[in-house]
Amino acid sequence: MKNRRWLIAANPLGRALQASDFRADEGVAPAPGAGEFLVRVSMLSFDPALKSYMENIAGYASPTQIGDVMPGEGAGAVVQSNHPGFPVGARVKGLFGWQDYAMSNGAGTALIPDGVSDEAALGVLGTTGKTAYCGLVEAGKPKPGDVLVVSGAAGATGSIVGQIGKIAGCTVIGIAGGPEKCKRLIEAFGFDAAIDYKNEKVRSRLRALAPGGVDVFFDNVGGEILNDVLARLAHGARVVVCGAIARYNFDPRDAAQMPEGPRNYFNVVHAHATIQGFILHHYERFHATAETRLAGWLKSGRLTAAADVLDGLERAPEALIRLFEGRNFGKQLVRIAG
Amino acid sequence: MKNRRWLIAANPLGRALQASDFRADEGVAPAPGAGEFLVRVSMLSFDPALKSYMENIAGYASPTQIGDVMPGEGAGAVVQSNHPGFPVGARVKGLFGWQDYAMSNGAGTALIPDGVSDEAALGVLGTTGKTAYCGLVEAGKPKPGDVLVVSGAAGATGSIVGQIGKIAGCTVIGIAGGPEKCKRLIEAFGFDAAIDYKNEKVRSRLRALAPGGVDVFFDNVGGEILNDVLARLAHGARVVVCGAIARYNFDPRDAAQMPEGPRNYFNVVHAHATIQGFILHHYERFHATAETRLAGWLKSGRLTAAADVLDGLERAPEALIRLFEGRNFGKQLVRIAG
Repeated sequence: MKNRRWLIAANPLGRALQASDFRADEGVAPAPGAGEFLVRVSMLSFDPALKSYMENIAGYASPTQIGDVMPGEGAGAVVQSNHPGFPVGARVKGLFGWQDYAMSNGAGTALIPDGVSDEAALGVLGTTGKTAYCGLVEAGKPKPGDVLVVSGAAGATGSIVGQIGKIAGCTVIGIAGGPEKCKRLIEAFGFDAAIDYKNEKVRSRLRALAPGGVDVFFDNVGGEILNDVLARLAHGARVVVCGAIARYNFDPRDAAQMPEGPRNYFNVVHAHATIQGFILHHYERFHATAETRLAGWLKSGRLTAAADVLDGLERAPEALIRLFEGRNFGKQLVRIAG
Repeated sequence: MKNRRWLIAANPLGRALQASDFRADEGVAPAPGAGEFLVRVSMLSFDPALKSYMENIAGYASPTQIGDVMPGEGAGAVVQSNHPGFPVGARVKGLFGWQDYAMSNGAGTALIPDGVSDEAALGVLGTTGKTAYCGLVEAGKPKPGDVLVVSGAAGATGSIVGQIGKIAGCTVIGIAGGPEKCKRLIEAFGFDAAIDYKNEKVRSRLRALAPGGVDVFFDNVGGEILNDVLARLAHGARVVVCGAIARYNFDPRDAAQMPEGPRNYFNVVHAHATIQGFILHHYERFHATAETRLAGWLKSGRLTAAADVLDGLERAPEALIRLFEGRNFGKQLVRIAG
């Protein structure tokens, strides 16, 4: 069986991703050995951390080399199996990489329950949803009546964070780029308000929308947006630093090219506020609860999953690059096979 | 009775303090009315927040005007009284201002217990000691075996923070300016190590002294020192932002002149670290415990109080200015009488 795949062609450290960082390749799907099974990948999941995987500097990634299959999470179905836990026909998700077929021995691979789509398995019920739940609920600790601000609000994580904020009784303000995204935040996800950072001044809009200040800020962006929100903290505010899309194109080892830090950090003193770093694997003890609750909210319709799906494995590099250009709305996915 | 006093002559917002910001004045001590008492001030206490009082921008200060008596904490003795709780002869501390005699109705004024010196009442058992205790113990949450780093370590707060860190079983590293201060941190206060930021590279020294990273950072300084420590956080690190002497000469309303924020703030994500703003009045429920424990440690000799005392009310402006020049060692005080 022909196995199309994308290989890492260059290390993009310290610059923006480009199409030539990936090389299309074609091989033959291997046959599973003892205890192994072969997965026909049907859907790939994209998030900014994939760039870090190529750079080998993030503490949370296994090392990669030029010529490796590009890593990444995916969903698919078992087509050959020597593993009793993953029989032929079982639907699974795992770190399958950008390819048609992936081999697994079960490590890091999970069965997808009946009734759960690939989109949901990789999005709301996957890393994205758990990041949103654990980051907001366990790190941000929202209280009913709080003003919650989310940056990157139209992205995969941000759109779920805002919706969980509504379930938690918060007033939710999303920050996103462009009037169309802002409109969808309110209409599709029930945000109370949205700030278009490309066309509006974030700080003065926050002053108008939340005159009492921001109680919880869930930050996916960093840079000037973080600095502006730090100027508007309410007493006892919690800032959850989840991502910083503004920093992904810099080499953190080179102080000279790093973007400025938030000048307003000192506001945490008078606001008695906390800035908390968040990464999902530190919150493993909450993962099961997160999955159960997210599944319940999805089923009851309290949570709407937005997926931005491109068709065809050949579009995988484009899918990753458009994340950094802010062109996706909701979870970025690529459908390989149906 | 002649009452010498220092008045505010200018608002130093956005620049360094200078002698001409204060004007010497002389009046007559008033006679106490019903429920009032007159205090002969014997000692004045200095800390960087006094500059903020003159600027009227900090959220925690009562507004001041040009021509007002310069505010500030002091200790003294009651010399005339119409208040049964504060009889003649009682020793007291309170916000008496820079003057020989101050009137009080008892609000914000406390009796100094027998056996407690003015130095101790204004230092270890005053705002300084409580800031060190509550900031380290309740915000920083040190555990035995932790590596604690303190900036401004030779200052009033920093020198106590480091000593409490030793009591808590931490390895304590102080950051201070100049070899003499560093030597005294180790010899007089029992710090395990000291980094002279004027002559050594903070980041590489931290790497050598704390190869496993910094568990608690108590920051009085901000600027590049904060940024350097953020590069060396251990997993689960707590950064307590107490002060930022590097920022006192900037106008926070003018974004263009504000110093850069810490570029390495994003390290809190992989380190699962927290940056917590600290200001004493948010920790009132711990004040009584703090005072009891500080008094016990002082009595038993586990805590050494360093006071840097200038003689004469005429030297009050000099005492405040030298704080910002880093010339004091331990608590800056001025002795007026007694």
